Amino acid sequence: MKIAILGGTGDIGQGLALRWALDSDHEILIGSRKAEKAAESAAEYLEILAERDVDARIVGHENAVATEGADVVVAAAPPEHVVELTETIAGGLAPDAILVSPAVSMERDEAGFHYAVGRRGSLTGRVAKAAPDDVPVVGAFHSLGARRLATLDADLGMDTLVVGDDEAARQTIIDLASEIQGLRGLDAGPLANAAAVEALTPLCITVGINNSKHGVGVRFV
Amino acid sequence: MKIAILGGTGDIGQGLALRWALDSDHEILIGSRKAEKAAESAAEYLEILAERDVDARIVGHENAVATEGADVVVAAAPPEHVVELTETIAGGLAPDAILVSPAVSMERDEAGFHYAVGRRGSLTGRVAKAAPDDVPVVGAFHSLGARRLATLDADLGMDTLVVGDDEAARQTIIDLASEIQGLRGLDAGPLANAAAVEALTPLCITVGINNSKHGVGVRFV
Repeated sequence: MKIAILGGTGDIGQGLALRWALDSDHEILIGSRKAEKAAESAAEYLEILAERDVDARIVGHENAVATEGADVVVAAAPPEHVVELTETIAGGLAPDAILVSPAVSMERDEAGFHYAVGRRGSLTGRVAKAAPDDVPVVGAFHSLGARRLATLDADLGMDTLVVGDDEAARQTIIDLASEIQGLRGLDAGPLANAAAVEALTPLCITVGINNSKHGVGVRFV
Repeated sequence: MKIAILGGTGDIGQGLALRWALDSDHEILIGSRKAEKAAESAAEYLEILAERDVDARIVGHENAVATEGADVVVAAAPPEHVVELTETIAGGLAPDAILVSPAVSMERDEAGFHYAVGRRGSLTGRVAKAAPDDVPVVGAFHSLGARRLATLDADLGMDTLVVGDDEAARQTIIDLASEIQGLRGLDAGPLANAAAVEALTPLCITVGINNSKHGVGVRFV
């Protein structure tokens, strides 16, 4: 499978790229606004993996180029850019592609991080609206703790909730998540549940801050 | 400590009563709208515990009587009754009492359970508004899986998120939660986070339904 990780030079993108390259045989396309930056990140990730004798397939491209021909496109841009990014690449998505949204809008104040419920609904829902009607949008990989994900020696032992209205697309992403060692994709139902799923991320961060833990994730037991 | 569990004849109330009676020395006051029903439940719980040679202190009272003199009052009524219950017992709360809200408003449709975000905010927040200003309100024990909690042979191995604006009250409830074997109270910050915490419950139920598990709870890892 070809997985494009747009915004793949950022923290959550790095973690997903490294983990999939380590634990699966998928081809990873790192996307960035600048092809040069994407190529640099790809080279950096390959170097990290080479230290572990892992011979991975990771290349870097401009976002639109990475999107073309990818079976799964992860829009791993910051929350304030992800809708615009979706609009930019919408025309280039392959007919059978699945678009994955891991971004979460949060607000921070003196009491910690809080979920920013948009007037226009969940961020995953907004990405779905910006995407072509025939491309299934799936929300996943929200509350993984970017640094922990990118630290390949760190055990994950956590779950990621997967939401979306297209059941087959949801299952593909559940399987793709579960290929990462220590990660388990769990079916959290339709897009209507995306806000509740996204709201877990600031909760994980708040629990981490208040209980002196880093990279807190969640496990359903 | 004296813990009143109002609506203590219901499912989550039963679980909390049995677990605290089993794992701590606190005195449990079961509250119900009818004293007779509360007394019946208290007797039933004592019988379950006696089978395990546990000599617990559990008595049953009408809700208002159970409230008087309790250090911690858990409003374990169904979501549609909990605000009214709070109004009913507000005047009888002891000066240093803590009021705990475990209820969650959910909607069910063909796609499963969803969090019902009220126009008036979280249910914990609405309980706080109905409570006297000087009584700290803490949200906790939302997503425990009532049947699993009440099945004393079932391992919990799960967390409960504790929210509230009064830090000392929050800590008391975190400690009280953690006295139950296999349960861990975690500080989830101020009341502003209550909606995100409450939204976890329908997610747990949905994850349970979609992944063929029962009594799904959550563990922060």
